[in-house]
Amino acid sequence: MKSTIVTIGDEILIGQILDTNSRYISQALNRIGVVVAERTSIGDSGEQIVATLDRALAQSDVVIITGGLGPTKDDITKHTLARYFNSELIYNEQVGSFVEQLLSRRGIAFTELNRGQAMVPQCCTVLHNGHGTAPGMWFERDGKVVISLPGVPFEMRHLIDDSVVPMLQERFELKAIVHRTMITSGIPESLLAERIAQWEDNLPQVLHLAYLPAPNIVRLRLSAYEVEEQSAKELIDSEFDKLREIIPEAIVGFENATVEELVHRWMIENGKTLSVAESCTGGAVASKFTAMAGASAYFHAGVVSYSNEAKRDILGVDMEDIIRYGAVSETVAIQMAEGAKRAGGSDYAISTTGIAGPTGGSAEKPVGTVWFGVATPKGSFAVMKNCGTDRQQIIDRAVAHAIKLLYDNL
Amino acid sequence: MKSTIVTIGDEILIGQILDTNSRYISQALNRIGVVVAERTSIGDSGEQIVATLDRALAQSDVVIITGGLGPTKDDITKHTLARYFNSELIYNEQVGSFVEQLLSRRGIAFTELNRGQAMVPQCCTVLHNGHGTAPGMWFERDGKVVISLPGVPFEMRHLIDDSVVPMLQERFELKAIVHRTMITSGIPESLLAERIAQWEDNLPQVLHLAYLPAPNIVRLRLSAYEVEEQSAKELIDSEFDKLREIIPEAIVGFENATVEELVHRWMIENGKTLSVAESCTGGAVASKFTAMAGASAYFHAGVVSYSNEAKRDILGVDMEDIIRYGAVSETVAIQMAEGAKRAGGSDYAISTTGIAGPTGGSAEKPVGTVWFGVATPKGSFAVMKNCGTDRQQIIDRAVAHAIKLLYDNL
Repeated sequence: MKSTIVTIGDEILIGQILDTNSRYISQALNRIGVVVAERTSIGDSGEQIVATLDRALAQSDVVIITGGLGPTKDDITKHTLARYFNSELIYNEQVGSFVEQLLSRRGIAFTELNRGQAMVPQCCTVLHNGHGTAPGMWFERDGKVVISLPGVPFEMRHLIDDSVVPMLQERFELKAIVHRTMITSGIPESLLAERIAQWEDNLPQVLHLAYLPAPNIVRLRLSAYEVEEQSAKELIDSEFDKLREIIPEAIVGFENATVEELVHRWMIENGKTLSVAESCTGGAVASKFTAMAGASAYFHAGVVSYSNEAKRDILGVDMEDIIRYGAVSETVAIQMAEGAKRAGGSDYAISTTGIAGPTGGSAEKPVGTVWFGVATPKGSFAVMKNCGTDRQQIIDRAVAHAIKLLYDNL
Repeated sequence: MKSTIVTIGDEILIGQILDTNSRYISQALNRIGVVVAERTSIGDSGEQIVATLDRALAQSDVVIITGGLGPTKDDITKHTLARYFNSELIYNEQVGSFVEQLLSRRGIAFTELNRGQAMVPQCCTVLHNGHGTAPGMWFERDGKVVISLPGVPFEMRHLIDDSVVPMLQERFELKAIVHRTMITSGIPESLLAERIAQWEDNLPQVLHLAYLPAPNIVRLRLSAYEVEEQSAKELIDSEFDKLREIIPEAIVGFENATVEELVHRWMIENGKTLSVAESCTGGAVASKFTAMAGASAYFHAGVVSYSNEAKRDILGVDMEDIIRYGAVSETVAIQMAEGAKRAGGSDYAISTTGIAGPTGGSAEKPVGTVWFGVATPKGSFAVMKNCGTDRQQIIDRAVAHAIKLLYDNL
């Protein structure tokens, strides 16, 4: 069973908003075994909507459309669909009275434009939208299904979860799609590919391997499409077992678990605590941990010591060492980590101090140079790494490296 | 001049990653006057790439493709393009020696797979990728252009900015695309549409109006495609002037400038300095500022005081007040802001202390309760706001609110 996802809206094509709806729908369809063949974004143009529908229906069994269902004149999806399915727009009492209620709860008058939102093509099945004024619509033609949903993300999400997913499972006999991801760290992508080349060549035909590189990490994903779930899972597990023998030192986790999630789990399970001192990463290391529910059980303190005075006053770094060796140096990285451990009263601490650029680099310490300090119950040390050339890249890589370094030393 | 953006990768279709590349490219093309007719995401399939290229070239003058240029077997874009343009892959010395250098700087060996990355179709113009191992490629056929870029976001961004944009401007005579957005607040979308209906009906044909609703906000965007820039801007300004008379109370701002950018600019222009103390936002406020180049000119220190001891020891918050009023309270928020201002030796400071959940809430202080402290040269105060029910939502809203509160008090 193949599907096409179509998101409609000029605001997507001009880059004014980020299209997160497509991803949410992709995940939901994959979970229930519907293959996503293509995702496409088009403008609020009747002609383009019709051409895209024709094409999508030719290549897939299910088409999910979002957007263009608002009350204003720039939203034309519903009228276009009514014409496409040769169906009249009629007033739907249930939708109308729900919208009236919803607006009155928010103290908003029910206008002629809102009445228009309760007009739906006669031929469609209405999908109740409990969180907004535009209902979802389900159309069928020649055994194929077209579903139109509002573009407002949380309204769309509720409709996908509460209506679309159960109705597709009811309507079609779906097989499974199985994805499993192994997270590796420490071996660059091309070397990793060489190490596992023989394993890759001998993979069963039903499994598809993908490499997904990220800072300091390469994810290996095995996918099987439209299969029997249990046997596909077992097949993937047995292939991953083989990898455990080929690259045992590189495997750091499975699925989308991040290294910070592994640290998070370890800290909670072992009752240990963590503090962080950051210069070039500017709070991004701390926020990776504190974004996770339950972080308060182990995360004591983070210090973003951007200025030298902050390094001295909050972390107790020796100002003479800063002057002698520079703020980006082994000794300052160690003193920052030890200072964070002491100030936060924690068992572990990590620190970053580097040159994120674009200015501040020198021949000896170019932009991208980052020192990482680690303070553990057993002692402290620091390592240096060049994290790239672009500010955001340097920050992202330094964050990933700092957390990995901590994880390796737990 | 029309364009189509094609992002390639199974990881997009299964929803494993969020496609942010399409948005970046859309923005860049709009800035230089290239209309984005469609964006599409397809899998790593040669057949699908060829069919999509055929279609994209039929409907547009420029096609920009990202993804599928990695060194491993799952990446097939380059081979497919070579076949599509009937061109042989040849070794490019410059690319090869650059990749070798790049890897050696990171201490990584140059392998046969990396050598493969320096193989490019003979007919293309190579676009130098200064930040990664896969070069960009520029193809021409029948006056139309196909550009292939790596999918790694920061590599793609540099290639767009440094090569693609200037080369397109050089290659084609481009007109302008002008978008201006007015931000309104306080009038629901349907009522707003009624209030401005007459204005909307009388808009010049060249201007397109879009309504973009969000919680408590409706953005009104006027767009003009492929026009003379100055006169289009003046036309939009005069239409917005009319709106100032129709809905004067509802206009809260223009365009998409983020509040942190406004603070960043203000601090540098006024030579003032900033520190931050965070509890529930856990470093995310600090990282918003430190992500911007030049932040070290004003950002002194951030403290993520997750534990009560950290609040006391680093920020000097009175432990008795924490016990009496709770860590999430007006007095603690003020003491945190003042402590950050003092510890960081800065002119301004903001603090956040709240309950991000999912646990830790009570009847009196439910999950989502956040106190914000502001310390300025003129004095300190704190305000409370409920930021929602979901951990990430609470953190995001609290970050936005803290920065907005600071901006309002500069």
